[in-house]
Amino acid sequence: MTEPRRWSLAEAQSLAARALRAAGASPAMAEDTAAALVAAEAEGQAGHGLSRVSMYAGFLREGRADGSAQPRVTAARGGAALVDAGNGLAYPALRMAEDQAGRRALAHGVSFVSVTNSHHAGAMALPVRRLASRGLVALAFTNSPYAMPVPGGRRPLLGTNPVAAAFPRRDALPMVVDLALSEVARGKIMVAAKEGRPIPEGWAFDAEGRPTTDARAALDGAMLAAGGAKGAALALVVELLCVALGGAAFGFEADSFFAPSPNPPRLGHALLAIDPSALAGREAFLDRMEALVGAMLAEDGVRLPGTRRDSLIAQARVDGISISKQLEEQLRSLAHV
Amino acid sequence: MTEPRRWSLAEAQSLAARALRAAGASPAMAEDTAAALVAAEAEGQAGHGLSRVSMYAGFLREGRADGSAQPRVTAARGGAALVDAGNGLAYPALRMAEDQAGRRALAHGVSFVSVTNSHHAGAMALPVRRLASRGLVALAFTNSPYAMPVPGGRRPLLGTNPVAAAFPRRDALPMVVDLALSEVARGKIMVAAKEGRPIPEGWAFDAEGRPTTDARAALDGAMLAAGGAKGAALALVVELLCVALGGAAFGFEADSFFAPSPNPPRLGHALLAIDPSALAGREAFLDRMEALVGAMLAEDGVRLPGTRRDSLIAQARVDGISISKQLEEQLRSLAHV
Repeated sequence: MTEPRRWSLAEAQSLAARALRAAGASPAMAEDTAAALVAAEAEGQAGHGLSRVSMYAGFLREGRADGSAQPRVTAARGGAALVDAGNGLAYPALRMAEDQAGRRALAHGVSFVSVTNSHHAGAMALPVRRLASRGLVALAFTNSPYAMPVPGGRRPLLGTNPVAAAFPRRDALPMVVDLALSEVARGKIMVAAKEGRPIPEGWAFDAEGRPTTDARAALDGAMLAAGGAKGAALALVVELLCVALGGAAFGFEADSFFAPSPNPPRLGHALLAIDPSALAGREAFLDRMEALVGAMLAEDGVRLPGTRRDSLIAQARVDGISISKQLEEQLRSLAHV
Repeated sequence: MTEPRRWSLAEAQSLAARALRAAGASPAMAEDTAAALVAAEAEGQAGHGLSRVSMYAGFLREGRADGSAQPRVTAARGGAALVDAGNGLAYPALRMAEDQAGRRALAHGVSFVSVTNSHHAGAMALPVRRLASRGLVALAFTNSPYAMPVPGGRRPLLGTNPVAAAFPRRDALPMVVDLALSEVARGKIMVAAKEGRPIPEGWAFDAEGRPTTDARAALDGAMLAAGGAKGAALALVVELLCVALGGAAFGFEADSFFAPSPNPPRLGHALLAIDPSALAGREAFLDRMEALVGAMLAEDGVRLPGTRRDSLIAQARVDGISISKQLEEQLRSLAHV
């Protein structure tokens, strides 16, 4: 096998945007989406990266995502705003939400921005990292199509419900936490199913709501929350924050992304941003951050969350990203080049 | 053993307030604290209830809590405010924070209120339930003295970091989620240690950071987060939200409540409140709540979070609460009656 070619971030973004435009995305939607996917790729999150272009192109062609949608702010008061994604791909709406969250947090001390009628959103670390690099504490939440049961339940009603958080630091990149509330990513179960391997107990239920180690049975059933009933309760809180406040669709109302469907998923996201200078003050906040970071790093074996991704981003800016021959061919074919 | 006597909520609150005043709390601090403890008792959370009076009285006598402290707002912008508890007991500051969070969310769509220089705060469900009964979505967070490691760590740096959330419903009591991020409450380990029983794997590390099933060794070590590294990462996020923004003390900077100390813990809390009418609108929000509740209750065996507590509260309002002879004697002795 030949060494995969390395692409500059701009080159990769340009090809991905071209593929999305060819599938019906407006130039702005194609650029915002390609930029987010390349940024995820750069931080080593290939599962949220360019492999998604073909899925998104499918959504656009099937009308499951509206390529001509333009996000707009449909309600606002003080620190709160609602962005309607118009059933387009998620990233133009997320960019608008990030902008709203940043400006409103600076003006009002805190902001909460809901996004409704939105779509698959992989890498929620991106908007919070950018808000933190502007000095704000930021959290992001999203739901996803049905995946996990509510506490005490066996049917998949909730999404896997990622939570991302970023905290500014003094003379250092923000500390970024980014995790889904499921015990494992669905991708791990898909790989096990493909390879005919069993999965550990505690990952999933089958379609009848029974614990299973059969990866194929798990894909027809429900994924379990990390932390048992407590994790499921937190996933319920995230689902309500993302969906109910913005009037979006719950996980159980959205068709799986892994099967064809004409229905836009109408998913919801939420961004929370807080300006430390409105509370104990910027310097006091940064002092406190460094006190905790110091205590963490005094312990052998502890790394700050997100530092591996930071190194990968820095490296990708210099060396570009590696794209497999197979993915390159897929992107070229979608882009007609 | 004689049947424990039942007390009306007002009677119990009056005795607890008297005990706290005798230990040096101002009348207002005694009333706010006694009201919170009785409310926790009424919802079946005895661990956050009247058994705490004697611990709080000890803090007040040792000067670890300032009985004359008066909370005040020391910074504010739009939806954000900082309440300084002045190293008094937590509840007067929490009541002020709840009031600030409610008023600011109504005015600015969203509010985030930090509390600093505060103390042990057990039942965080109380302020969020009250905010939700006014139509707001509310979340509450607190840290506590050192209990849990950061992700990848073995020393206890973080608190057990409870998260409470409440969501208003149409013609029904709010849905309330209330949990600590530790795998189990410390009280369970204390009971096992007292009875000489082992604890399950996954609950705790010993003082050397090794997994242990020895309950006594666990009390000298660290409690583990529910959900492994993901739970620890969430506890880190909660710790930063509670502490860094308000300039409070981290878990590892606060002396244990289970050993004598002259040092105020300077803990932090945070309240987040969001007005649904600033986003998709009150009716749309309530519609969405009922859609999820309907799907949950359509499943056998699923109960809404918090409903058991709601029944206990309703029952306690009619029948009062039961106080053991031993606790009654302790309270009477503290109150000098």
